[in-house]
Amino acid sequence: MNNKYFNKKIILSNYPVGLSKKDDFSVIAEEIDPLNDNDILIKTKYVGIDAALRLLLRDSDDFLFRVKKDDLIRGSIVGEVIESKNPKFSEGDYVLGSLGVQKYCVSTGEDIEKCDLSLANPELWLSGMGIPGLTAYFSLLDVCKPSPDKNVLITGAAGAVGSIAGQIAKLAGSKVIGTTSSDEKCKWLIEELGYDYAINYKNKDWFEKLSSVSDKRLDIIFDNTGGHVMDESLKIIGMKGIVLLCGSTSQYSENEIKGPNNYIWLGTMRARLQGFVIFDYEDRYEEARINLSKWLNEEKLKMPTHLVEGDIDKFPEIFEDLYKGKNYGKFVLKLKD
Amino acid sequence: MNNKYFNKKIILSNYPVGLSKKDDFSVIAEEIDPLNDNDILIKTKYVGIDAALRLLLRDSDDFLFRVKKDDLIRGSIVGEVIESKNPKFSEGDYVLGSLGVQKYCVSTGEDIEKCDLSLANPELWLSGMGIPGLTAYFSLLDVCKPSPDKNVLITGAAGAVGSIAGQIAKLAGSKVIGTTSSDEKCKWLIEELGYDYAINYKNKDWFEKLSSVSDKRLDIIFDNTGGHVMDESLKIIGMKGIVLLCGSTSQYSENEIKGPNNYIWLGTMRARLQGFVIFDYEDRYEEARINLSKWLNEEKLKMPTHLVEGDIDKFPEIFEDLYKGKNYGKFVLKLKD
Repeated sequence: MNNKYFNKKIILSNYPVGLSKKDDFSVIAEEIDPLNDNDILIKTKYVGIDAALRLLLRDSDDFLFRVKKDDLIRGSIVGEVIESKNPKFSEGDYVLGSLGVQKYCVSTGEDIEKCDLSLANPELWLSGMGIPGLTAYFSLLDVCKPSPDKNVLITGAAGAVGSIAGQIAKLAGSKVIGTTSSDEKCKWLIEELGYDYAINYKNKDWFEKLSSVSDKRLDIIFDNTGGHVMDESLKIIGMKGIVLLCGSTSQYSENEIKGPNNYIWLGTMRARLQGFVIFDYEDRYEEARINLSKWLNEEKLKMPTHLVEGDIDKFPEIFEDLYKGKNYGKFVLKLKD
Repeated sequence: MNNKYFNKKIILSNYPVGLSKKDDFSVIAEEIDPLNDNDILIKTKYVGIDAALRLLLRDSDDFLFRVKKDDLIRGSIVGEVIESKNPKFSEGDYVLGSLGVQKYCVSTGEDIEKCDLSLANPELWLSGMGIPGLTAYFSLLDVCKPSPDKNVLITGAAGAVGSIAGQIAKLAGSKVIGTTSSDEKCKWLIEELGYDYAINYKNKDWFEKLSSVSDKRLDIIFDNTGGHVMDESLKIIGMKGIVLLCGSTSQYSENEIKGPNNYIWLGTMRARLQGFVIFDYEDRYEEARINLSKWLNEEKLKMPTHLVEGDIDKFPEIFEDLYKGKNYGKFVLKLKD
């Protein structure tokens, strides 16, 4: 390594209370050490902003993973290889990995994969071609199995996963209803993503509206939010229905996480609340990406990616904005050169 | 009908607040009308006391079924046919049906089935041979699939379903842990029913004890109670585990039903909370009863039946006692002649 690289990385400085604030994070600058054999130096191009991160920022061992004070903030990035001592990666390769919120990272190649840019542009590898798209793809097609006779509700419909999931359910012929946090996003869901119905859950009559548009009980609730919206929706879960537990964004910043009080409806309706983790499907990512990319190129699927440009220290602000519901699709920080 | 029969039946007089009280029920006496063609007159011998009834006694349309003021209290009974104008039933037959809490009932034969007393004694048709036994049988063997490498937790382990479910899981070779409400019942679970461990959830350290005896995470949580015990247990649900939603007895008499706040663990562990209703298995009851009876006769399975003798108006008191946890196995009122 002839040049010296100075990294900038975001670490946790305080455990957030409620929504995270700028002060909860700090920026650290440090020189990058020379590469060892097999090391790859990656320059971050795009940082994915992930709602589930908030759950890891708790001062509690209640969950399996956590980010402690002074730890690097976790996050998926797409970056460009700028130096490589690893025969599998070359300068100029674009790679994807959960390498944390930082300008540069060094990898041994075990925790990254190459982005095939003939399939999709780099930023889409954090949205439709990345974890959100793969999650929507497998959890719907492999677990929920939408079909033309089914009613599908997507909560958090305009989010990273929801915005893809709704479209895949439409491709399968289902009637698709989405909930989201504003009238503008409702319009976007219907006009841009082809949802049949979209409901602003901040309106008082949202549940009446949901009940009236779904004409029969819900076969699939694809749940990204948890909280009140998921809980109320359980009252109209259908016979042998499935509630796919994809995320619980409404709960991650709450001091005490609340579960669904209407869970008894699962019993009455022989329905199930089904956990899902995308990493179980790692050996099938390629298959999914080929299909997702095909749909993208045939204009059957959009991969909504909400790009905001800035330096790495813009991360705390965008993370706040994510929790204010400002994103349409996957929120991505595009790093300025 | 030469004789005149006077029925006595229990109706709802007030919607209970919290645990039901004697005053919430009334006894009505009335003459039985002459039988029509196909009618069967049944004299109730045994009344099953069912915790789930409490959920129906709410002044609310939040659930599918309810018992309104002045309605007959629902309940399964075993009775003897004392007159029949139906060719399929004869005097002296023992029958089982959800005919309500009353001394006599008239059936057209559609809502009853004959008890084959060569398989088991009449009162067992409300416990091991009835809905509790069938529920334990199919929900475990068909849905949960216990095996020797699995850890099974039964909440409400000394109840009607739990007391059978734990034994069936033991027959399948699993390690079986039960929770119940007293040290005496713990002793009973281990000594009489063969549970590996039994935990009094009223002790402060119950969860530590559960975590320590289960050596690995739980593969199956067979949940009869809901509430705090189920909720805490979710923290140790295992990979691809199943939480079988059989009942929620801790919640039925609560003003506001509370769901499991730790449901996020279902996501992390790719586990599921699975609703179950026994009526989906109606065409396989016979198969199950033959096996259950075989196990009973081979002394591999006990069918705990907590008999209390009295007149029909003893029902409200026993229903209270059920909620005080006084029963070992299925609580059954044996009517005095």
